[in-house]
Amino acid sequence: MTEITETMTGWLAPEELESVRGRMPILYVDAVPVRVDDAGVVTRVGLLLRIAQDGGVSRALVSGRVLYHERIRDALLRHLEKDLGPVALPSLPASPVPFTVAEYFPTPGVTPFHDPRQHAVSLAYIVPVRGDCRPRQDALDLEWFTPDEAASPMVQQEMTSGQGVLLKQALAFVGRLP
Amino acid sequence: MTEITETMTGWLAPEELESVRGRMPILYVDAVPVRVDDAGVVTRVGLLLRIAQDGGVSRALVSGRVLYHERIRDALLRHLEKDLGPVALPSLPASPVPFTVAEYFPTPGVTPFHDPRQHAVSLAYIVPVRGDCRPRQDALDLEWFTPDEAASPMVQQEMTSGQGVLLKQALAFVGRLP
Amino acid sequence: MTEITETMTGWLAPEELESVRGRMPILYVDAVPVRVDDAGVVTRVGLLLRIAQDGGVSRALVSGRVLYHERIRDALLRHLEKDLGPVALPSLPASPVPFTVAEYFPTPGVTPFHDPRQHAVSLAYIVPVRGDCRPRQDALDLEWFTPDEAASPMVQQEMTSGQGVLLKQALAFVGRLP
Amino acid sequence: MTEITETMTGWLAPEELESVRGRMPILYVDAVPVRVDDAGVVTRVGLLLRIAQDGGVSRALVSGRVLYHERIRDALLRHLEKDLGPVALPSLPASPVPFTVAEYFPTPGVTPFHDPRQHAVSLAYIVPVRGDCRPRQDALDLEWFTPDEAASPMVQQEMTSGQGVLLKQALAFVGRLP
Repeated sequence: MTEITETMTGWLAPEELESVRGRMPILYVDAVPVRVDDAGVVTRVGLLLRIAQDGGVSRALVSGRVLYHERIRDALLRHLEKDLGPVALPSLPASPVPFTVAEYFPTPGVTPFHDPRQHAVSLAYIVPVRGDCRPRQDALDLEWFTPDEAASPMVQQEMTSGQGVLLKQALAFVGRLP
Repeated sequence: MTEITETMTGWLAPEELESVRGRMPILYVDAVPVRVDDAGVVTRVGLLLRIAQDGGVSRALVSGRVLYHERIRDALLRHLEKDLGPVALPSLPASPVPFTVAEYFPTPGVTPFHDPRQHAVSLAYIVPVRGDCRPRQDALDLEWFTPDEAASPMVQQEMTSGQGVLLKQALAFVGRLP
Repeated sequence: MTEITETMTGWLAPEELESVRGRMPILYVDAVPVRVDDAGVVTRVGLLLRIAQDGGVSRALVSGRVLYHERIRDALLRHLEKDLGPVALPSLPASPVPFTVAEYFPTPGVTPFHDPRQHAVSLAYIVPVRGDCRPRQDALDLEWFTPDEAASPMVQQEMTSGQGVLLKQALAFVGRLP
Repeated sequence: MTEITETMTGWLAPEELESVRGRMPILYVDAVPVRVDDAGVVTRVGLLLRIAQDGGVSRALVSGRVLYHERIRDALLRHLEKDLGPVALPSLPASPVPFTVAEYFPTPGVTPFHDPRQHAVSLAYIVPVRGDCRPRQDALDLEWFTPDEAASPMVQQEMTSGQGVLLKQALAFVGRLP
């Protein structure tokens, strides 16, 4: 998952967040950016290219924390703009129901999702984007994959924290899991 | 529900459809056209104004039959274009999962949904539309309501066949049921 | 929402929880206990009778916080057992997807849900229970209502924090909203 | 998909059904029988062992047609009892919302689902069963698989008509896709 950088603008100082992280679940959102055709069929899935903490390259979903007094959909918008730039034109879901809830545990194996820093619970959404995506901040690039490519072992092994599973769940939800 | 008019372009002659109607469930789609704000919140719901078979005025969702060898999303597109015109710019759902399944029975009271002509099973979807809506065919007008208005007794009593309940289910799904 | 009492067994001392509450969203679960018939149709909805903080009587869903390193389904089980007793025999959902996400804001009007103490984000689930329910702790009683009764103004006005809306969303999801 | 045998008790004579099959989509249900633990986690998936039309052995979900004037949940009950016997004790879903809609086309490649005999649209549900399963009729056996086994190439290649994909979608929905 994305390193949390929004704390400077949040209500918790970084050292306070560190203190809380070992004490209670932290609410996150995950967004799967997709391109759809005129009939709504998902034709491409967008993955961020990041430098992982170990220096390796990894592919990631748009992901981040929900702040105090922030609606889930505003958190989605903020993280999408942060990662895809200001002209991506995302279509946010009309319903608050996520396609899945990913429980990232600090202990591996409790669920398919793992985050050594914290217990994060993430509401995951499919987000069609119509505009031009220009990755910013710590993302090097955004690359579009076909559903078959996204589910392939090559892409799956470049994803960490269980986000490869989350991506396959997204493909299953939109009927595009091969 | 909409009087079926697509049979001329389908694979069943009208008299054949009549014959089948009393024998097996007929697959339908219902679409709830909505306007959303930048954050995806539903701000308006579109309802068609129709002349009912008894001569009275009624409000209705976009609704119609799925044809042989037609994908559900193509049936949605076809009925949306038929009822809202060619420049409504609907955003079809990426997922095939409906927000509910409405079972219209010829016998009243089995479910909240009733269709004296047939047993119709309808997959119901929320469809954001961004363009200009120009009702055609048997619809006199399309009127946009706030979620509060759409759930009000005044609008609810103008809806037939149980579509008022279906509309409230749609509002509940998008978190806008008052 | 239920007054939080599980902090004694959690990882946060009560004063620490108070400190965090004004700083970040707190993860909750809401459960709607239901009785179903052999075909799965919801026939009754269970509501807890509580004494509200102002001394008045109110009806409430099963609700509570998710603790650090606790799975959502374990939080559901814990709160169901706390409120319905040890022999309620709840059937937990196989999927982690909630029927809705209720965002309780400390500021009224941002969403239909309100909690003056905190910003709570609650994943809401329908939970069929087959056993004998014996309310414990601060609940005086558990009463079963038909879907029509649960959606009636009389019951709705006895619910606080927006849980009446949440209950109607649950009824809509199971196809029993009148 | 299961060879339709219920026509004798339905409203269509077999020759009439054949006539309709090439003319309009036929409504089906698919059920994925599962065993769950006390917390609702899916631990096993049940697959029927069948003799396919080409004489080969295949594994299949519980599947069948919805009859005229039959509720979806009654069709599910009927097919579950037909395939798993009378004491399987299935827990039918409280909500009519399927985890996916599988569109079986007579033409391969339109969707992942294929049925050379007809255009079938199937609402697919997860169904926990608590009792004893005794396959009947044309099923030779019911075998329980772990989620990992169910998603494995060995089991997947024994499934036909795209039901392997449907099974993986079910596993994704319950958070058990490896």
